[in-house]
Amino acid sequence: MNTSHLIDIANLDDALIERIIDRAVAFSQGGEPIMVEHAVANLFFESSTRTRVSFEMAARRMGLQVINLDGPRSSMTKGESLLDTLATLRAMGIEVAVLRHGQTGICHEIVDRLPSGLGLINAGDGCGHHPTQALLDMATLIEQGIDLGSAKVVIIGDLRHSRVARSNIELLSRLSVKELGVAGPPALMPTKDVLGPGVTCFDSLDQALEGADVVMMLRVQKERLQAEDLIDWADYHNDWGLSTQKLLMAKPGCRVMHPGPINRGIELSAEVADGPQSLILDQVRMSVFTRMAIFEALLT
Amino acid sequence: MNTSHLIDIANLDDALIERIIDRAVAFSQGGEPIMVEHAVANLFFESSTRTRVSFEMAARRMGLQVINLDGPRSSMTKGESLLDTLATLRAMGIEVAVLRHGQTGICHEIVDRLPSGLGLINAGDGCGHHPTQALLDMATLIEQGIDLGSAKVVIIGDLRHSRVARSNIELLSRLSVKELGVAGPPALMPTKDVLGPGVTCFDSLDQALEGADVVMMLRVQKERLQAEDLIDWADYHNDWGLSTQKLLMAKPGCRVMHPGPINRGIELSAEVADGPQSLILDQVRMSVFTRMAIFEALLT
Amino acid sequence: MNTSHLIDIANLDDALIERIIDRAVAFSQGGEPIMVEHAVANLFFESSTRTRVSFEMAARRMGLQVINLDGPRSSMTKGESLLDTLATLRAMGIEVAVLRHGQTGICHEIVDRLPSGLGLINAGDGCGHHPTQALLDMATLIEQGIDLGSAKVVIIGDLRHSRVARSNIELLSRLSVKELGVAGPPALMPTKDVLGPGVTCFDSLDQALEGADVVMMLRVQKERLQAEDLIDWADYHNDWGLSTQKLLMAKPGCRVMHPGPINRGIELSAEVADGPQSLILDQVRMSVFTRMAIFEALLT
Repeated sequence: MNTSHLIDIANLDDALIERIIDRAVAFSQGGEPIMVEHAVANLFFESSTRTRVSFEMAARRMGLQVINLDGPRSSMTKGESLLDTLATLRAMGIEVAVLRHGQTGICHEIVDRLPSGLGLINAGDGCGHHPTQALLDMATLIEQGIDLGSAKVVIIGDLRHSRVARSNIELLSRLSVKELGVAGPPALMPTKDVLGPGVTCFDSLDQALEGADVVMMLRVQKERLQAEDLIDWADYHNDWGLSTQKLLMAKPGCRVMHPGPINRGIELSAEVADGPQSLILDQVRMSVFTRMAIFEALLT
Repeated sequence: MNTSHLIDIANLDDALIERIIDRAVAFSQGGEPIMVEHAVANLFFESSTRTRVSFEMAARRMGLQVINLDGPRSSMTKGESLLDTLATLRAMGIEVAVLRHGQTGICHEIVDRLPSGLGLINAGDGCGHHPTQALLDMATLIEQGIDLGSAKVVIIGDLRHSRVARSNIELLSRLSVKELGVAGPPALMPTKDVLGPGVTCFDSLDQALEGADVVMMLRVQKERLQAEDLIDWADYHNDWGLSTQKLLMAKPGCRVMHPGPINRGIELSAEVADGPQSLILDQVRMSVFTRMAIFEALLT
Repeated sequence: MNTSHLIDIANLDDALIERIIDRAVAFSQGGEPIMVEHAVANLFFESSTRTRVSFEMAARRMGLQVINLDGPRSSMTKGESLLDTLATLRAMGIEVAVLRHGQTGICHEIVDRLPSGLGLINAGDGCGHHPTQALLDMATLIEQGIDLGSAKVVIIGDLRHSRVARSNIELLSRLSVKELGVAGPPALMPTKDVLGPGVTCFDSLDQALEGADVVMMLRVQKERLQAEDLIDWADYHNDWGLSTQKLLMAKPGCRVMHPGPINRGIELSAEVADGPQSLILDQVRMSVFTRMAIFEALLT
């Protein structure tokens, strides 16, 4: 794979991961980016305030031109294939496309047929991957001074549908986290071989939290669960939602992460979301710096 | 209230009102703004060409970065609360949010819980307030050389639902207009205590117009009246619409204002809207200068 | 007609056509535009990725400010007339409006009542005109070294509804193409007087292609044909679609053009669209340079 794309964690080499995280932390401390004159297109075929704005802010701080294209309004409604759209954008001078798409695997499907000179950044594909979220989560932890080599990190919730979980599991494994665990409703857990050998499945939230340094809560994505919903959401918060009281099970000072947007009262209580152990707004802040670092790495 | 917000007229102090209007008039005559490097988000949860573009043009002329977010497309559709959205934008580096929202009172509801470092500008909340419209209306009158201290100003139409009327009544009272009157269909008039002691209620358009120096026509907002509509719109233009002939009842040279967009043939005849006494396009022109002055006042 | 508008080909004088094409070719070879400080509004009341982004990229490369307005979201939904919208934008400082609209003839209808100081560029009106597409098609052919004075050009498909065809026929005639022909399903052909005396109607694709130097394939616009559709689309590709085999009927090296977006397998086979004789991505590339040249011509 060309290093001008960022499709998933597996295809990033160690040096690039290290560079992105280092530069993100440097930007958060006032470091100046290498300015580049390029044009970026944000193609968002799923709605997303936070990710689209984060990429747009990052691009502008790098001096990049940004063109926003939202799915339902674009000529995709006229049947133009995504590859034709990308070839068209490339011919117009766009050099990087940031793609958010509802179809799992869409980036892998098209990456070998992309027009020459166009870099592709996967900003989330269906239930597939979300590598920039994993990178910004790591940059957040490292900026907070957390040593992954001695940390227990647990991911809680709907692991089966979560592209955030998949990319974080891949990246945490690559970065040699000491202990990595997952927990959630049995109906929403992936099979063991998807998780990989180094990941522990806990049967309850209490077990998962025990001794945890970092807990990543996943968003309950009701929109993805509609058709197959066997979950009683009234019970969900009791069993798998993180409250102040349950957080006492974890290591003192355990950090709480969430990719946003939050369903308050479902996966997280408002007290935890807004409390002193929450890194949620730090993740948002680091998201801009991390995406700046990604643009810098792909374009310079 | 923090002076970094602009929520309604009541919370603006006299010096700030004077500064905004003075600077707006100065900009309209070629004055240079104090340039600022900040990022502004336009959050429009009701559609509005004119107000959104006016804020965007004003922000760009000040050298501000502008991020546009439209309601139905944003992650508000995923249940993220407005306050979470604003905290997210602040964490991404946004320093001013311009909010247009259909819910009356939304700005007052959230203003005390805004993230630190984020200024909020109310660009119209339901049937509540629209302070930037009132400020630009005053800047327009003052640029035209009208002396409010000796002027009769009347506001005509659906006073009950009009945020434009409410903010203009507050601001005209603060600026000691000589005479302030209102008129409209009885079903669309607010109660006397809402209007305040200094405001005269006229029973007919003719009475209101008699001796008027300025007449502000309100937009008939059919979309807000649907559920409770007891008005015969065929009669409306006859009774409360402003035609060239009716305008003769006012003082010679009486200025006509309208916040736009116009329903031609309902609240205003086309002849009046496009006629020599109309200030409608002057209001639009001054809208950009006034919003530049507001950004300057909040950010420098 | 004011030369600050670009409404159709008929109203462009020869010098302006020559200037636009010459400058487009110069920009494609690295020529620097005369930078201008103006503000442009993109008003797109029909969805279009390619045209809107092309104008936006062109405007930004000229140093122009760009405001994007999409139809269904704008205050057009509140009944504001298009002319009021344009007058409002002009009062806010917009100097050029790029208009894409579904209503045939809308630009001609409003051009005499436009606010002073506002230039209008027709970016496609219903089944009317699309002059910037014709100009970019010519710039593409000329950049490719094709001599129109000795060339046979044929346009294939739904001539009756195609604004692209209409503008190209006008422009090719003005530029004294040696031979100009059209062909398509009889139900989708315009009357002879619409085509003009210099245009040959061919009865089949084979006849049209014979000896052709350039073939312009039109997009099948199913969305415009719904109500009156007497065409069997299964047969369409057989009779009027361009395949590699059929292209052998044309002159060796015959160039293939298409305004995009392509319906692969209907008007064009994928092999032809992506093949060595295709100019489709060259058209896209030249679209940005041609629109830069148009902005330069109208604004300097």
